[in-house]
Amino acid sequence: MGRPSPTIVMGIDPGSRITGYGIISVLGNHCRCLEYGAIRCYNRRLETPFAQRLKTIYHELRSVLRRHAPAVVAVESVFHAVNARSALQLGHARGVVLLAAAELEVPLFEYSPREVKKSISVSGRATKEEIQTMVRILLKLKEIPQPNDAADALAVALCHAFKGVASQRLEQQANLAR
Amino acid sequence: MGRPSPTIVMGIDPGSRITGYGIISVLGNHCRCLEYGAIRCYNRRLETPFAQRLKTIYHELRSVLRRHAPAVVAVESVFHAVNARSALQLGHARGVVLLAAAELEVPLFEYSPREVKKSISVSGRATKEEIQTMVRILLKLKEIPQPNDAADALAVALCHAFKGVASQRLEQQANLAR
Repeated sequence: MGRPSPTIVMGIDPGSRITGYGIISVLGNHCRCLEYGAIRCYNRRLETPFAQRLKTIYHELRSVLRRHAPAVVAVESVFHAVNARSALQLGHARGVVLLAAAELEVPLFEYSPREVKKSISVSGRATKEEIQTMVRILLKLKEIPQPNDAADALAVALCHAFKGVASQRLEQQANLAR
Repeated sequence: MGRPSPTIVMGIDPGSRITGYGIISVLGNHCRCLEYGAIRCYNRRLETPFAQRLKTIYHELRSVLRRHAPAVVAVESVFHAVNARSALQLGHARGVVLLAAAELEVPLFEYSPREVKKSISVSGRATKEEIQTMVRILLKLKEIPQPNDAADALAVALCHAFKGVASQRLEQQANLAR
């Protein structure tokens, strides 16, 4: 039998101005950062039309998805937004993100902000800064990934990885108990 | 000189369950309905995953856009939504609609619900039913297009057509006045 191969997980933090993404490889408990970045689709001086911004998000995400061929895409679920207007804007970007994953037939997993926090820190009430620090530590990075949207995307990817590991462990324990 | 050719206008009423569309040809004051319909992407029994629904909207719209090659896509602008949750859902569908138009490089125009109402009825406060009746009358249809989403989409297409006619007239008057 060959060595088990790592699973590639892509986390995405959608936004109508900046969409962050992070790719990690997961093998058992070990997570390694392969790439992170942000798609900036807003040019303040040129006032990019909204539909063009969505096109930028869609094409750049497709190119990252093709390059890494992740087994899974993880995004944060959103239930609360500041207001209807910002929810609508976020919805546009999120719709395009979900479409990009569906088009390339990559399974999509959604995690609530609380699940993300709980999975990579001690509590579901960690601050954004604490989460970003945990991302840096867990992925053995020298610095906190910038922009914050990229760090947030890596946090969701890590959440998926740890949830997967936890459910595998439960499965193993159940098998042993039989 | 040959006869002037009609302009094809496509109106779209995005929704996460039903997306209505309507295609009209416009020549001067005359508008003719070429096709209308609705993309239903929600199956109550099968509980279609949300990303799959967006994929259905995207592909079906692309196919209609390719079939009619409209010069313009018109959609209603949204500033107010019932709540943040419904705004988020609508935003997802709308994002995919805007992307489909941008991908095929069809210029997009947005009109407020008030503009749509004012352009095809006597007031900006017409009811939904009055608007649908006006769509039937203006396009010389035997019945009000069903589902309502298709009638709403045709209303936005007519709004664009009438706005265009109005601005052309102003231009002609300005030229005559010179």
